Amino acid sequence: MTDVNTLGEFGLIEHLTKEFSILQPSTVKAVGDDAAVIDNAGFCTVVSTDMLVEGIHFDMAYTPLKHLGYKAIVVNLSDIYAMNAWPKQVTVSIAISNRYSVEALEELYAGIRAACEVYGVDLVGGDTTSSPKGMVISITAIGQGERERLAYRNGARPGDLICITGDLGAAYLGLQLLERERRIWLEHPDMQPNLEEQKYIVGRHLKPEARKDMVEAFQRADLVPTSMIDISDGLASEIFHLCRESGVGALIEESGVPIHPETQLMALQFKLDPITCALSGGEDYELLFTIDPKDIDKIRFLPDIYIAGEILEASAGIRLNTKGGNLHELKAQGWRHF
Amino acid sequence: MTDVNTLGEFGLIEHLTKEFSILQPSTVKAVGDDAAVIDNAGFCTVVSTDMLVEGIHFDMAYTPLKHLGYKAIVVNLSDIYAMNAWPKQVTVSIAISNRYSVEALEELYAGIRAACEVYGVDLVGGDTTSSPKGMVISITAIGQGERERLAYRNGARPGDLICITGDLGAAYLGLQLLERERRIWLEHPDMQPNLEEQKYIVGRHLKPEARKDMVEAFQRADLVPTSMIDISDGLASEIFHLCRESGVGALIEESGVPIHPETQLMALQFKLDPITCALSGGEDYELLFTIDPKDIDKIRFLPDIYIAGEILEASAGIRLNTKGGNLHELKAQGWRHF
Repeated sequence: MTDVNTLGEFGLIEHLTKEFSILQPSTVKAVGDDAAVIDNAGFCTVVSTDMLVEGIHFDMAYTPLKHLGYKAIVVNLSDIYAMNAWPKQVTVSIAISNRYSVEALEELYAGIRAACEVYGVDLVGGDTTSSPKGMVISITAIGQGERERLAYRNGARPGDLICITGDLGAAYLGLQLLERERRIWLEHPDMQPNLEEQKYIVGRHLKPEARKDMVEAFQRADLVPTSMIDISDGLASEIFHLCRESGVGALIEESGVPIHPETQLMALQFKLDPITCALSGGEDYELLFTIDPKDIDKIRFLPDIYIAGEILEASAGIRLNTKGGNLHELKAQGWRHF
Repeated sequence: MTDVNTLGEFGLIEHLTKEFSILQPSTVKAVGDDAAVIDNAGFCTVVSTDMLVEGIHFDMAYTPLKHLGYKAIVVNLSDIYAMNAWPKQVTVSIAISNRYSVEALEELYAGIRAACEVYGVDLVGGDTTSSPKGMVISITAIGQGERERLAYRNGARPGDLICITGDLGAAYLGLQLLERERRIWLEHPDMQPNLEEQKYIVGRHLKPEARKDMVEAFQRADLVPTSMIDISDGLASEIFHLCRESGVGALIEESGVPIHPETQLMALQFKLDPITCALSGGEDYELLFTIDPKDIDKIRFLPDIYIAGEILEASAGIRLNTKGGNLHELKAQGWRHF
């Protein structure tokens, strides 16, 4: 165990970032100066930032540090993709208490590096500092996009189709499972949790991916979504954001919301309705977007796109048409039961 | 007192940012979407980030929240100016425990807004989240600069003149004074601290300014420093960074290091050598830069520039020539006494 303090602040940053390579031609200057320098050539720079706090966003009891580093990057990149733009650089700032060793930080940075490599982004700066308690990670992602191809939250129009890029609710149930196993383990330390059979949902929580592939597919298909947002807080919350910003209403078809079979089974184990998990469970990092119906041929042959409803006039509100044929008014945190 | 939780996360961000106005024509999209969008026109984008942790970087006992917000922005902008670039946008992420009220956050954001207005930068994003304990502020500043006018740490060459933009050591002594007064107050709660007579040094600590004016002056004088860094950790530490990155040595003249009379007096009260405070005390946020001697006429008539020494070959080391005529080898945290 190497104490964090042995390296000093500058030594620590140097130590943690020395294995990062520069991938982007636009990265003129990365770590090692007062600021990072990014060359531009007429494209828009897109910036997103997120803060993750130990005990609030993650629990060290069941979050491997490498996964944490990977996820911290991915959730930021997801915000850039949700603009229909391309992440290019990230900055990572970390506050840590002295109970973390250099080896622990190396694990964290190994995850950060893995995500940077998978998504082809450069780490270009950051700050490492001490904290009286716990860990705080703050990440800023910087991307580029063509101005006329960016997808905002405010572009949805009545008649637009509502699309989702993958199944929902799995990350939430993965988290429920991890928390349940942790409680069992605290009470019976001799019992080892068996998570092998729930690899899918646990993986969706611990190591989510951002939908870079979809933004690539949109480009190949010459599709610009009329609006887009990433699903970090649950489908209901995100559809509310889109509708509020766009000044529209929406009808979601329960039958159009994709839910993985493992998610369905685990929801039943927890006595939860799977659609509630999809609507209110967060952290799936799929994309929710709307398209002009004239563009439907552009998505018809794309994999992993589910049409889940339609944008309506604002006066129609935001409703869910259940598989049983009932219309429920959606609330940001699920729906109102009558 | 309004509990932070009453507004909800989105309500809180909206509430805290609603009075910010957009100042930069390049800001296409600020707070309210997944990411901020910044239009570019061939300039380099320059990004810098910093994290401030309660109990490590600031003490709520003597830091007014408005000052804290102001300072948090200024120290980031200082990094952008130190590149000879112009800050344009900032993102601000904050983690806070529930002991902070909405009013407290408003104070903090009032300081952030004041700094944004003084320096003409836009708040374009951020994250507000809860923390189990204390406050963490993470700020990313994004700026623009002409590629051929940026000033890095690695451009200093033997023969270059070493320049400083203002007096040093004051912020450090301001902090010492505040900490002393706090200790006295804790022991004798009936005694009110009298800081009026030390307004200058206390102000240098609590409400530092970034040297935007100097970067403007450089532009008017058509001067590009061969290297530049902001003095956040003390002159000695910064000269070490410049020399290491540039592969050179340096000779600093004690008589060329500007120290304010109030700083001199307070140093003596604390039985400290004023030059030690200037070399090792941090947070003055002046600029340390080097120029080619052929450019000396460009700075001759600029106010607030002090020539403090000369860049030498690396083999000469980094030395201080004292007023008494003695040569001391400088250490990153001051100098070695023989």
